[in-house]
Amino acid sequence: MAKILGESIKNLPWQDKPAGYQYPVWRYNENPIITRDNLFFANSIFNSAVVPYKDGFAGVFRVDDRTRYHTIVTGYSKDAIHWELDDKIIFYGYDPRLCEIDGKYYLSWVNLTPQGTTIGIAVTEDFKNWTQMEDATYPVARNGVLFPRKINGEYMLLVRPCDRGHTPYGDIFIQQSKDLEYWGKYRFVMKPVKNWEATKIGAGPTPIEIDEGWLLFYHGVLTSCNGFTYSMGAAILDRDEPWKVLHRADSFLLAPHELYETVGDVPNVVFPCSALADAETGRIAIYYGAADTTVALAFTTIDEVVDYIHKHDIIEK
Amino acid sequence: MAKILGESIKNLPWQDKPAGYQYPVWRYNENPIITRDNLFFANSIFNSAVVPYKDGFAGVFRVDDRTRYHTIVTGYSKDAIHWELDDKIIFYGYDPRLCEIDGKYYLSWVNLTPQGTTIGIAVTEDFKNWTQMEDATYPVARNGVLFPRKINGEYMLLVRPCDRGHTPYGDIFIQQSKDLEYWGKYRFVMKPVKNWEATKIGAGPTPIEIDEGWLLFYHGVLTSCNGFTYSMGAAILDRDEPWKVLHRADSFLLAPHELYETVGDVPNVVFPCSALADAETGRIAIYYGAADTTVALAFTTIDEVVDYIHKHDIIEK
Amino acid sequence: MAKILGESIKNLPWQDKPAGYQYPVWRYNENPIITRDNLFFANSIFNSAVVPYKDGFAGVFRVDDRTRYHTIVTGYSKDAIHWELDDKIIFYGYDPRLCEIDGKYYLSWVNLTPQGTTIGIAVTEDFKNWTQMEDATYPVARNGVLFPRKINGEYMLLVRPCDRGHTPYGDIFIQQSKDLEYWGKYRFVMKPVKNWEATKIGAGPTPIEIDEGWLLFYHGVLTSCNGFTYSMGAAILDRDEPWKVLHRADSFLLAPHELYETVGDVPNVVFPCSALADAETGRIAIYYGAADTTVALAFTTIDEVVDYIHKHDIIEK
Amino acid sequence: MAKILGESIKNLPWQDKPAGYQYPVWRYNENPIITRDNLFFANSIFNSAVVPYKDGFAGVFRVDDRTRYHTIVTGYSKDAIHWELDDKIIFYGYDPRLCEIDGKYYLSWVNLTPQGTTIGIAVTEDFKNWTQMEDATYPVARNGVLFPRKINGEYMLLVRPCDRGHTPYGDIFIQQSKDLEYWGKYRFVMKPVKNWEATKIGAGPTPIEIDEGWLLFYHGVLTSCNGFTYSMGAAILDRDEPWKVLHRADSFLLAPHELYETVGDVPNVVFPCSALADAETGRIAIYYGAADTTVALAFTTIDEVVDYIHKHDIIEK
Amino acid sequence: MAKILGESIKNLPWQDKPAGYQYPVWRYNENPIITRDNLFFANSIFNSAVVPYKDGFAGVFRVDDRTRYHTIVTGYSKDAIHWELDDKIIFYGYDPRLCEIDGKYYLSWVNLTPQGTTIGIAVTEDFKNWTQMEDATYPVARNGVLFPRKINGEYMLLVRPCDRGHTPYGDIFIQQSKDLEYWGKYRFVMKPVKNWEATKIGAGPTPIEIDEGWLLFYHGVLTSCNGFTYSMGAAILDRDEPWKVLHRADSFLLAPHELYETVGDVPNVVFPCSALADAETGRIAIYYGAADTTVALAFTTIDEVVDYIHKHDIIEK
Amino acid sequence: MAKILGESIKNLPWQDKPAGYQYPVWRYNENPIITRDNLFFANSIFNSAVVPYKDGFAGVFRVDDRTRYHTIVTGYSKDAIHWELDDKIIFYGYDPRLCEIDGKYYLSWVNLTPQGTTIGIAVTEDFKNWTQMEDATYPVARNGVLFPRKINGEYMLLVRPCDRGHTPYGDIFIQQSKDLEYWGKYRFVMKPVKNWEATKIGAGPTPIEIDEGWLLFYHGVLTSCNGFTYSMGAAILDRDEPWKVLHRADSFLLAPHELYETVGDVPNVVFPCSALADAETGRIAIYYGAADTTVALAFTTIDEVVDYIHKHDIIEK
Repeated sequence: MAKILGESIKNLPWQDKPAGYQYPVWRYNENPIITRDNLFFANSIFNSAVVPYKDGFAGVFRVDDRTRYHTIVTGYSKDAIHWELDDKIIFYGYDPRLCEIDGKYYLSWVNLTPQGTTIGIAVTEDFKNWTQMEDATYPVARNGVLFPRKINGEYMLLVRPCDRGHTPYGDIFIQQSKDLEYWGKYRFVMKPVKNWEATKIGAGPTPIEIDEGWLLFYHGVLTSCNGFTYSMGAAILDRDEPWKVLHRADSFLLAPHELYETVGDVPNVVFPCSALADAETGRIAIYYGAADTTVALAFTTIDEVVDYIHKHDIIEK
Repeated sequence: MAKILGESIKNLPWQDKPAGYQYPVWRYNENPIITRDNLFFANSIFNSAVVPYKDGFAGVFRVDDRTRYHTIVTGYSKDAIHWELDDKIIFYGYDPRLCEIDGKYYLSWVNLTPQGTTIGIAVTEDFKNWTQMEDATYPVARNGVLFPRKINGEYMLLVRPCDRGHTPYGDIFIQQSKDLEYWGKYRFVMKPVKNWEATKIGAGPTPIEIDEGWLLFYHGVLTSCNGFTYSMGAAILDRDEPWKVLHRADSFLLAPHELYETVGDVPNVVFPCSALADAETGRIAIYYGAADTTVALAFTTIDEVVDYIHKHDIIEK
Repeated sequence: MAKILGESIKNLPWQDKPAGYQYPVWRYNENPIITRDNLFFANSIFNSAVVPYKDGFAGVFRVDDRTRYHTIVTGYSKDAIHWELDDKIIFYGYDPRLCEIDGKYYLSWVNLTPQGTTIGIAVTEDFKNWTQMEDATYPVARNGVLFPRKINGEYMLLVRPCDRGHTPYGDIFIQQSKDLEYWGKYRFVMKPVKNWEATKIGAGPTPIEIDEGWLLFYHGVLTSCNGFTYSMGAAILDRDEPWKVLHRADSFLLAPHELYETVGDVPNVVFPCSALADAETGRIAIYYGAADTTVALAFTTIDEVVDYIHKHDIIEK
Repeated sequence: MAKILGESIKNLPWQDKPAGYQYPVWRYNENPIITRDNLFFANSIFNSAVVPYKDGFAGVFRVDDRTRYHTIVTGYSKDAIHWELDDKIIFYGYDPRLCEIDGKYYLSWVNLTPQGTTIGIAVTEDFKNWTQMEDATYPVARNGVLFPRKINGEYMLLVRPCDRGHTPYGDIFIQQSKDLEYWGKYRFVMKPVKNWEATKIGAGPTPIEIDEGWLLFYHGVLTSCNGFTYSMGAAILDRDEPWKVLHRADSFLLAPHELYETVGDVPNVVFPCSALADAETGRIAIYYGAADTTVALAFTTIDEVVDYIHKHDIIEK
Repeated sequence: MAKILGESIKNLPWQDKPAGYQYPVWRYNENPIITRDNLFFANSIFNSAVVPYKDGFAGVFRVDDRTRYHTIVTGYSKDAIHWELDDKIIFYGYDPRLCEIDGKYYLSWVNLTPQGTTIGIAVTEDFKNWTQMEDATYPVARNGVLFPRKINGEYMLLVRPCDRGHTPYGDIFIQQSKDLEYWGKYRFVMKPVKNWEATKIGAGPTPIEIDEGWLLFYHGVLTSCNGFTYSMGAAILDRDEPWKVLHRADSFLLAPHELYETVGDVPNVVFPCSALADAETGRIAIYYGAADTTVALAFTTIDEVVDYIHKHDIIEK
Repeated sequence: MAKILGESIKNLPWQDKPAGYQYPVWRYNENPIITRDNLFFANSIFNSAVVPYKDGFAGVFRVDDRTRYHTIVTGYSKDAIHWELDDKIIFYGYDPRLCEIDGKYYLSWVNLTPQGTTIGIAVTEDFKNWTQMEDATYPVARNGVLFPRKINGEYMLLVRPCDRGHTPYGDIFIQQSKDLEYWGKYRFVMKPVKNWEATKIGAGPTPIEIDEGWLLFYHGVLTSCNGFTYSMGAAILDRDEPWKVLHRADSFLLAPHELYETVGDVPNVVFPCSALADAETGRIAIYYGAADTTVALAFTTIDEVVDYIHKHDIIEK
């Protein structure tokens, strides 16, 4: 049996797997959970991230406003399903991730600069007062995802160097830091291998520490003659040298099959940005953007997902 | 209170704004009003234009036939919602606009020539007999929209120079003429500014004269990794020098959110081509192509839209 | 009255044309008939081909698995509507066609090689034991479709030379062979002419021998600003020199208008790969991939379709 | 014998055709005649135009300065070979043409606007005082060339609509005007036909009136795997309806073969912008930019060139 | 010592290797040997092929005429250096190769069809009367090169499938035939490996039979930011299964370093099309196109070139 | 009078400015100084860097070998003009820069990794034993140039983030480090402004400390229809915050005008990588790659170049 290392989340949102359903990740049956109706000025609310906070949950949300500019707001929830979003923009940019390290909450996001996107880093203790730190990269980078603790004395950031357009180069790297200010020891982690991810890949939620190492959900992009399709895959990284991929599923775990995933501002997008994992039950709730339009929710357990990765492993030993 | 200058249209189609709806433009609840079922040989009927005519309405309609060639037909309606389309093709080309000037009806459309598209101009008094005039441009141009009267002795045509492909350059210009035959005094009007229109923009319905100047609805295009998204915006132009933009809303007024706008021959298209404005009540009915597949209808009032433009104005004074 | 030459298929699937429906090809009202639910490991099941076999039907099915790799499996059905698919992969590749010649069943498909796609050829008598022959082309080719008998002593293969990407060049050729091993006498058949097929065309089902010659259904591709749209057209080829096109309809016979055709892994795709034709009744059942996601079924009769081709003929005499 | 209609130019620069040389246009043996050494701030001086002026010659010269910005200056010469260039910039832009009409000198050039290039028009009587008129086009256009007199009461401008990049669309059009301010009656003249000009074509010097009509030198562009090659061709246009091409040579008359034409800022460019034609002797001196770096000179006679066009005519009668 | 199998060519053109020169292939010191001056209507004469014929030599020459259309003519020479070219066009197309098989001379070239280029095949016994056979491929293919004898009962043709543009895909294949009419048994031979050939490769002269197998000179293309660079490499193929590459040099043997190779219609091109090999002395004379403008000549010996290939071999055993 | 801060270089190579020459940088009259003849296995030797070493000079040289792979070797010279190159490859990659800091010599170069180019850093004291450190960036970056001393306690590296192709994005950034291992505090320095550099820019030699701040030579790229043109420009950076540009010349200081700069493996390239500056005399010798084929030398003085920058300054105060 696989095991999540970490805290228990009592009120983790949950639905049991539907009878007869054969795959390791299943959707919440009232998806989407957040839509443009949650905020007056929103054209769309999607790729977003949440953490347990006090007796409920807090989150950071990508809101593209009605000029289609990219903003990030905060929100709160008791059950992690129904959310109140604050209409105050805390940062401009997109695809936020949230990571608690030693009691502080670190936001990493795609920061907008005149020369292209960087990985912005900001920290808060109360989701009201944010301190923006030095950017963790020069342009152009996306999908910056922190590990939830130092490893061998180093903070670690997953990151995908990229370019100014939508051109297809995207491998995942790790960069390391003693202080979250100066970065080095760049290590290649993985690149696209299978068809469903052949165009580019990028880290998704904060990695989940498990007995085997680190469970990483990530997105992969396939290019059809009608554009990009984003799906979700998974891999297990080495605990101490997380640039070493121990196991990696050959196939996607979730792909755009439902209407709210196949139709919207960008059709055919499943984009995971956050996960809640309960060490006690092994339950995992995954938050993902759907069609660049809404936030949806999916479920799995650590046993289901680790078992699936092992059975579909593409890493040769 | 803003004011429409011009005639009253007694039987203008109308629905009140839904309770609780927060935006200045709202959809007709039985959209779409025209589909491919309206004409036997149609693959799709969309970007089209209407005017009051006799005791009802007449219109010109873009019909892509089942070879996917672009044709224009006429149609008639009593209520401007239910239309009878004539199966006679009056011109080949697409995206027709209609403009009454001094009792004559001028059609401007994207005329097809071997060297690329031009702005064709034709005139009728009865919607049966049409006289084609000299083209108003050389290739390649699209979105040619006439003003409904001479300004300082000049006919004025909004136009978007473009190229033979779908490449992203599209700014709106005005060109002037004493006789609708020779054109000059080209003036730049506006270019894409905000994200929702960042790829290109083009004039929509015939400008509506209001107390402040000219109300212009236009379309803007955003490029995602899955192609183009067309939305509708609005601006107010100077009455005497209409290449001067007095006010311009920062955000779209209507974007493809409904299924008939997000799914179809070209997903994610809202493309306004015509508007009826009633000077007495200030009501405005906007006709727009949806997903390059059907014609849909939306409503606003001159107060709502002018107020919105003022509050979201991007023009610095 | 047009006439199908060949055998009668007693249990050919059928629905009468809906009352008031005006076009020569109509959809099965319970489409799609095959979905990803038909096979555990499938992401999607679409462009597929069937033949009468024993007292029922057998088929070869394109199954894109959950790594999005392209596989081909077999399946069986009593009524040609409800299918049992075998989970054994017989070949890798895509877009299979099936053709009975002299009691043997020939599979031609897009074979995957490190240098690009070729036309693979394999033969079976029982759908269990398959013999792969020499490839019929070097890379890059797609849409290889055999005629169901030798013509003037030559096997004939329709084929579309193409390139490694989705770039727009695609004309249909015939290549000839005495032995299905060495090929030559390449003849140009036809290229895109009308808008609906302007990007590229490719042969669909095995040609159906009729009194006038060979009835060929084929797909045509139009490029919009949001990607490719695949529709189905038809032509009649000369019986003895089938590279001569006797008649060809100007418009599509089926285009993506239903939700299962406009939404899916590749929106806006109707891709015919197979047809069953009953010589006795003149009924034809067409199997086509919908949105690169499911298999759907449409019907026509030889009279309807030949009459339509004649009336919309683009071939000048 | 062909005949130039117009004035005699006594001091027209001239060299006899080299013995044994087989083609109708031959180079000046001291080419190039103008280089970057002619002006301190020049990176390169090339596509330029000259006219007889007083007892010598005046000209307008494309000077790309050492920021590589495009400027136009004037210059004077006694013999039309050795030039003194003025270091005062009269306009920004490029590829100037000069045309005398009724004793005034009209400059047409590629004018730079924020929205792209237009055809600028300016007039002078003394080459010192210039009056800039309304632009003759909206963006994007290049290669605007005036005829040296009104035809049927209309000024005529050859022009090539184009786009913002170097993409290959370029046909020559004529637009007409009563007053050089308002333009209309756009007429297609010609497009690329032969390989040497397959990418695009553009008018060169002011058309020369001859007994048969108008002699037009123009440039044509071929795209190789290493970029563009510019060569010079020739055609004869109808005197009264100059959009009718009476004769057109199938092959280039001058192509980049000499080192000063094949090596430079843009290798492989021969770009004619101006010609002096002596009605008395039939001699013609052609000024062309070489490799976007220098100005070079070539010679022909009206007999040679008309004879060549007739013998290599691609216009079917 | 390596050994050429085959006939002796007494009057093979020759110059000894310059003293101190360190590479296995050296240039003729009076290059180029053929220029546009050899034929009145030529813009350029380059990629061409020669064979011993009677007491001298005959050849086929690529002549791009002054419309830049591609033609092939014949020519004769006593010493294989000074050539008389015939002004009669025998075929249209480009890049001819010549191969003697059993006393007949086979021309293979890039044949022009409306659908793209094919490999044309024609045969002659006297260089005056040519019989065109069926094309050996459908479009699009280039660089078709025959082996000089049947191997295991099969004619063999090296060929590079390609596409309609200059896009970078180009691997070398072999296709086999019993009769030079029907082709099959396609075998992959080799693809680009090293930087100098990274874009695409294509067979050059007719393979030379040597004791080890077949010596193949070929061209490779590198793409810089200023376009393509063509160089010459070499490999040794298996005698009986010539799709097996026994040895292959890692580096080019000749690259565009001289001015006549680096400057011209297409700068930086060395394109070998033909070689003469003298079995007695082991001398080899290589004919190559230079800068798509002229024909040049280089020399080597079978010992030099085989030794070089062995020492720089990239084939792992 | 401007002043170089630093050491005197007694035997700095030098030629006085030619009489009558008007620009601030002039070429060595025996250019190029290093060619492919300097090393047996070289296809070309170009973008290279030198420093004073012992009683002469040492350098690192970009040698593209005859497979066109990128290698770096060392070399030595007494006079900095005539060089002996070592045939031992010390690193793979390209465009090396050399920088002495505190008596150690740091090499920064474009390091080749499977995921793209990074900035490699290596250190030596004797040019024989090299220690490779952690890469200073993840892929993709080029033009990494160290400052010759710590500034406010930080090592500083100029760098140009870029992508895997030749696509036009290239701005110069600074990144800072306490230890040359961890980097942060990314600061934008400058981007293309003028036409001659409009495509991209990159730092050239190690910045030279002068009384006003840091003198930076850099390259700029212009895109013509025939590809890229590389020229050299100059700027002065703030001494303590070197991401602040104090002065910047509007025009290039050296552009490809000589045949060895305009013809070669990549035509039209002047690419400076190194400079020697003598504090006593103010003389500066600049080493630059010419046409990606050879190394050439140019001269200036600190007075000439600073005066030129001041007079052509584009920085507004």
